[in-house]
Amino acid sequence: MARYHLGWEDERGNPSDAGGKGLRAGLCLLACEAAGGDWKIAMPAAAAVELVHSFSLVHDDIQDRDRERHHRPAVWTVWGEAQAINAGDALLALARLALAGASVPSKTLVRAGRCLDEATLEMVEGQVLDLEFENCDYVSVDEYLDMVGRKTGALFACSLSLGAIVAGAGDQRVGQFDRLGRRLGVAFQVRDDVLGIWGEAEKTGKPAGADLQRRKKSLPVLVALGGSAGEFVREAYGAPEDVPVELVVAAMERGGVGDECRRIGEGMRREGLELIAAMDLRNDAGRELAEAVGFLLERDY
Amino acid sequence: MARYHLGWEDERGNPSDAGGKGLRAGLCLLACEAAGGDWKIAMPAAAAVELVHSFSLVHDDIQDRDRERHHRPAVWTVWGEAQAINAGDALLALARLALAGASVPSKTLVRAGRCLDEATLEMVEGQVLDLEFENCDYVSVDEYLDMVGRKTGALFACSLSLGAIVAGAGDQRVGQFDRLGRRLGVAFQVRDDVLGIWGEAEKTGKPAGADLQRRKKSLPVLVALGGSAGEFVREAYGAPEDVPVELVVAAMERGGVGDECRRIGEGMRREGLELIAAMDLRNDAGRELAEAVGFLLERDY
Repeated sequence: MARYHLGWEDERGNPSDAGGKGLRAGLCLLACEAAGGDWKIAMPAAAAVELVHSFSLVHDDIQDRDRERHHRPAVWTVWGEAQAINAGDALLALARLALAGASVPSKTLVRAGRCLDEATLEMVEGQVLDLEFENCDYVSVDEYLDMVGRKTGALFACSLSLGAIVAGAGDQRVGQFDRLGRRLGVAFQVRDDVLGIWGEAEKTGKPAGADLQRRKKSLPVLVALGGSAGEFVREAYGAPEDVPVELVVAAMERGGVGDECRRIGEGMRREGLELIAAMDLRNDAGRELAEAVGFLLERDY
Repeated sequence: MARYHLGWEDERGNPSDAGGKGLRAGLCLLACEAAGGDWKIAMPAAAAVELVHSFSLVHDDIQDRDRERHHRPAVWTVWGEAQAINAGDALLALARLALAGASVPSKTLVRAGRCLDEATLEMVEGQVLDLEFENCDYVSVDEYLDMVGRKTGALFACSLSLGAIVAGAGDQRVGQFDRLGRRLGVAFQVRDDVLGIWGEAEKTGKPAGADLQRRKKSLPVLVALGGSAGEFVREAYGAPEDVPVELVVAAMERGGVGDECRRIGEGMRREGLELIAAMDLRNDAGRELAEAVGFLLERDY
């Protein structure tokens, strides 16, 4: 199940090549080099963050009843819910074991392990909040951003921090990577939310308006609920039958929701770029990291 | 949810006193003293094994559709499946963070962490096998004992090993505690299986024959399937309607299943006592541990 989820095998155990982007792993390796380490020593840490991310996806799909993941049936769709819970649990244990393989001093390994465990716990707290929000009539944009900071931001922060930690960086430097990663993670999710409504299906891999169809409380919906499109969206979300997605999107656009979301995204982008500029990373990896951050914060808006 | 499961609070967050036995924690503390350490340094490790145990119970209850745990509604019964998955995940992250609080050298902490992670992974593998067995027509007693070794034995082994590790014991000594714990865990589960059919409801807290009612492939059933009561039990388990539990138990008794199970249990008891005798633990805690092991292996047969 773990190999299937990671894209290395198909349902029957035959070799497959359907792996994810490895975004968090890439950030971890770049952070290690940017902090003055050799990226190779960060490989176990990079594997660990990818495995924690994988664990969360396997469990999220069960919780959200998402039958597909990366254009393939989700683990629970193939093996059932009960075994998929085990698959996620195993991935989390494997993440810790992956990290334990790092060739760094024990003291560094303990520090890295604590960073990974704290991020894992915070990520789970974020998922608890996300599920709670589904049953709330009203969620403020700030509450939403706090939730996303936990659910997505914590592991992005950990990906960068772990790279810096295994490179032997001091607390202050690690703190900078942590803040950058958190900002990046939130911005990444905000972008995802915007694309979930205004994205092109071909690029995002999910049908336009899918989040609205599922009545998810994504950022644009929360922004809409607080503005002039609020009443229409509230009624659409409360209606026993589905209101056509196009009507909801049109009401949001009349209410300037898209613009407001892009404004929030733009603010984060600026903050992220300021954070990385202030870090004054002068080596090649630092420049690559700044470029990657810029790319992630800008893409597809 | 975590505090509720641990018995510290009721569903509404009011204080409650419904904690578990803390068996694994107790074994961890005893092992630490028996290995020459001060039990107090093993407290974080003892908390960690209890939290890993708790995580597994929260997820097991979802997987097995058990609505009750320790005479209270299971976490998923109160908060739903999706949030209960999160509760289990959080307990696992908390287990690792608890261990990280141990005041021991970093090298020892890394060793302890690896022990906990390996036990966690093995336990999950055991649960995967246990669920797979439900869909198998035939499972041998050996396959069953291997599954139990993982599902129950690994964490018992880890409880004792962790105590010895934080006490600073060498690999050979830790290996002895590991083997003793594994034997103990399997024996404990075999006892549970026997009590699941022949136990008194008042003592075990679950109705006699409950395992049969749920058509679980517990040890007595596997022993029965391989013997003269096999055909009857196979038909009862395959029947669309429930066959009265008393009839199945009677068939098992005619086939000598109870005696065979007690024989298996007795073999383990002897092995466990031999293992602990060979360890030659001469301090008070060693004697207490031997007593506890004897008690656990004998009780209620």
